[in-house]
Amino acid sequence: MNELIGFFHPKSVAVIGASREAKKIGYVILQNFVLGHFHGNIYPINPNAEEILHLKCHPSVLSVRDRIDLAVIAIPAPLVPTALEECGRKKINNVIIVSGGFEEVGRIDLKRRLEKILGKYQKMRVIGPNCLGILDTRTGIDTLFLPSYRLERPKRGGISFISQSGALGSAVIDWAAMQGFGLNKFISYGNALDVNEADLLEALEKDGSTKVIIAYFEGMREGRKFFESAKKVSRKKPIIAVKGGRFEESSHAVKSHTGSLAGSSEVYSAAFKQAGIIQANSSREAFDFARTIINEPEPKGRKVQIITNGGGYGVLAADAAIENDLILARMNAETVKSLKKKMPERVVIGNPMDLTGDADNERFRIAIEAALNDNNVDSILVNMLFQVPTLDSDIVQILSELNKKKKKPLLVMSIGGNYSELHRHALEKEGVSTFISPFNALKALRKMVEHHYFLKKS
Amino acid sequence: MNELIGFFHPKSVAVIGASREAKKIGYVILQNFVLGHFHGNIYPINPNAEEILHLKCHPSVLSVRDRIDLAVIAIPAPLVPTALEECGRKKINNVIIVSGGFEEVGRIDLKRRLEKILGKYQKMRVIGPNCLGILDTRTGIDTLFLPSYRLERPKRGGISFISQSGALGSAVIDWAAMQGFGLNKFISYGNALDVNEADLLEALEKDGSTKVIIAYFEGMREGRKFFESAKKVSRKKPIIAVKGGRFEESSHAVKSHTGSLAGSSEVYSAAFKQAGIIQANSSREAFDFARTIINEPEPKGRKVQIITNGGGYGVLAADAAIENDLILARMNAETVKSLKKKMPERVVIGNPMDLTGDADNERFRIAIEAALNDNNVDSILVNMLFQVPTLDSDIVQILSELNKKKKKPLLVMSIGGNYSELHRHALEKEGVSTFISPFNALKALRKMVEHHYFLKKS
Repeated sequence: MNELIGFFHPKSVAVIGASREAKKIGYVILQNFVLGHFHGNIYPINPNAEEILHLKCHPSVLSVRDRIDLAVIAIPAPLVPTALEECGRKKINNVIIVSGGFEEVGRIDLKRRLEKILGKYQKMRVIGPNCLGILDTRTGIDTLFLPSYRLERPKRGGISFISQSGALGSAVIDWAAMQGFGLNKFISYGNALDVNEADLLEALEKDGSTKVIIAYFEGMREGRKFFESAKKVSRKKPIIAVKGGRFEESSHAVKSHTGSLAGSSEVYSAAFKQAGIIQANSSREAFDFARTIINEPEPKGRKVQIITNGGGYGVLAADAAIENDLILARMNAETVKSLKKKMPERVVIGNPMDLTGDADNERFRIAIEAALNDNNVDSILVNMLFQVPTLDSDIVQILSELNKKKKKPLLVMSIGGNYSELHRHALEKEGVSTFISPFNALKALRKMVEHHYFLKKS
Repeated sequence: MNELIGFFHPKSVAVIGASREAKKIGYVILQNFVLGHFHGNIYPINPNAEEILHLKCHPSVLSVRDRIDLAVIAIPAPLVPTALEECGRKKINNVIIVSGGFEEVGRIDLKRRLEKILGKYQKMRVIGPNCLGILDTRTGIDTLFLPSYRLERPKRGGISFISQSGALGSAVIDWAAMQGFGLNKFISYGNALDVNEADLLEALEKDGSTKVIIAYFEGMREGRKFFESAKKVSRKKPIIAVKGGRFEESSHAVKSHTGSLAGSSEVYSAAFKQAGIIQANSSREAFDFARTIINEPEPKGRKVQIITNGGGYGVLAADAAIENDLILARMNAETVKSLKKKMPERVVIGNPMDLTGDADNERFRIAIEAALNDNNVDSILVNMLFQVPTLDSDIVQILSELNKKKKKPLLVMSIGGNYSELHRHALEKEGVSTFISPFNALKALRKMVEHHYFLKKS
């Protein structure tokens, strides 16, 4: 990961501002390294403590003898410049400043002091200030100062997520963890004193374990550089962006948040399109798009077959297909003929295909298999109501096997309470892309289709 | 509830097609009456059984001596006419035909036979066929043939939900139950041989325990009558509608689903507006609108104050406010002055008001109380990240107390995993309107503001 690699693969880390009080940021961060799966050396820095979490404390990084690869600074803003200066002198090349209280609250003076120090130590790269830093599910780097009983950490996956807003980013990964979605890296870069969205994009391009990039930002430090990088990166790795502060009135809020300036909504949308960036309206939507792109094979075109055991969901899915510029597939005459033989008379072999409320596992298997094998069908949406007594839990196994054989996108939507959610989560765990509304599913499909069209055209 | 009252308050019920097999529809429906909180007499009808669930079976309703107020028919379609005829002869005035297999699969002949019988017995009203029938959380009527371990039943509440699609309706109430939302009545009316959406609207208008009506439909039997009723009803009880089959292509699916014809999307939208019907894009959205209208006092106007401990969510909420034609409130100078005294310097007293990531319970209480008392603020959206260590669970108590005192809408949005969802559900239980995205919250607020404007204008 080029010059930023040190942030993700440090062999030793110092926590400047390590605290003995469980509610303090400096305690939670230290605890993450101690109790997590980080394997390097850990140095708590605190001039007023002897030992924290059974680790010997040092008054300053300068009093640590060994090399330090990564420093995390979590002390009040006025004390940060001195700590950063010491990091420079100690030749620490990667520093995360978690502390807030700089230009976002008008302390331009403090920001200037940090810039000066950065200028002096050319090899030192800084993430932050005013950020949560990094969560890397592979190496165990975790500077999120929210304890894991309050904020769950997702399992390993292919999605890396960079966010200007730490709060938004962390709440979303907490949600993603509960949903069973995988994550690769989360990087909250806050005020972007040094490392910004453009740097991170280039770093993630080179990161083998990152398959898709999600970016949330409000304003940009280096817009031109970002879009130039994006144009290049989006050909290799899909980039999904959520832009906050899209209106004149709401963009006022951005300045006091991360001290950057938001641009107009239209300008950004146009730039996104040109650079091949997929735009999402929310981070949930961004995760839908990202999961679909990671899980699903490339669709040949826009023709989608809807299969359901709930007529109303068939109708709403057909609406959603039209709204998302997709086409309702028409299966081959032979497929229809063969299905008619295998299905009860009341099942209409159309699109949507309503298997009716008494469909069992086998009826679903036959219908989905037929659609998978029909070359007039580019992708499939199954609207599954698990609640009906004719279906049993083995449907998870059946869908999971069909999913492994598929050569076209196969999405499953289900809505309901605990019983239904249990089965949806089980499918998600088996690698099936699941959704809680037909609209969400087909919007994700649309974005994937459009992205593949973009890749072919350009 | 006028002539339809018998459907909701029967003193005795017959289940025609009661079955001994646990997976059969006729078993589940009988079980609902036996194990639920229905207090009347129950008569299983099955010529081939002696006893089911410890109840004596009868070969026909005609062999039951006592009066029967409600019959539920769950037998194959070709047998339904004879059963309905017998209900007529037995003078049963309320019949629910759950069975499918009529005009929706081309059996116009069977439909005609039912119509003829209906013509003969003028006092008999029929819900269905091809439907789930009724769930009434107050009286325990429950003809939903999905066992409750698969499909949860919501707690009592003020929302009544009529749905042409049984599958859609039942999946949504299952979801609503899990969310902790209340429900009054659910009525799935399927093919609407007799009782249709217009009849149900008029019945629910007179039903004291129904506060808001949600309607899902694809086509309509008596469009003119429905909109005339709606015009009248919507002045007393808000009506929220979701229309399936909104496009030429997708409306083909409607015919095979419930045998009715869907009209054009624009025609419906215009008619909704004129009749004061609030249009929702999905049933989830409909529940958001309904909850907000039931829980929240009337807002004076469009000015919303956003309060958050997550800057990014402040920015996204400001975006959502603009997108939903709301106005970012500007608090009075005195409020701002007084808040500045009580808050740390880095808290910007603006809109959004970012209490910053280390906000504690008390900081939230002060900010929300100030906004509740400021006459320049018409409503409040709190974007709460429960995950931060400075907040503790007592925030539920604090918000719940502020919520009880409020004279303006107070909405709470939070996103996250299990810890966060636990607290959101606790708030919901306390009567606070909670949401999982700022956009959902502010769209619901917008619909409520617009509905009150409509009521004043007309």
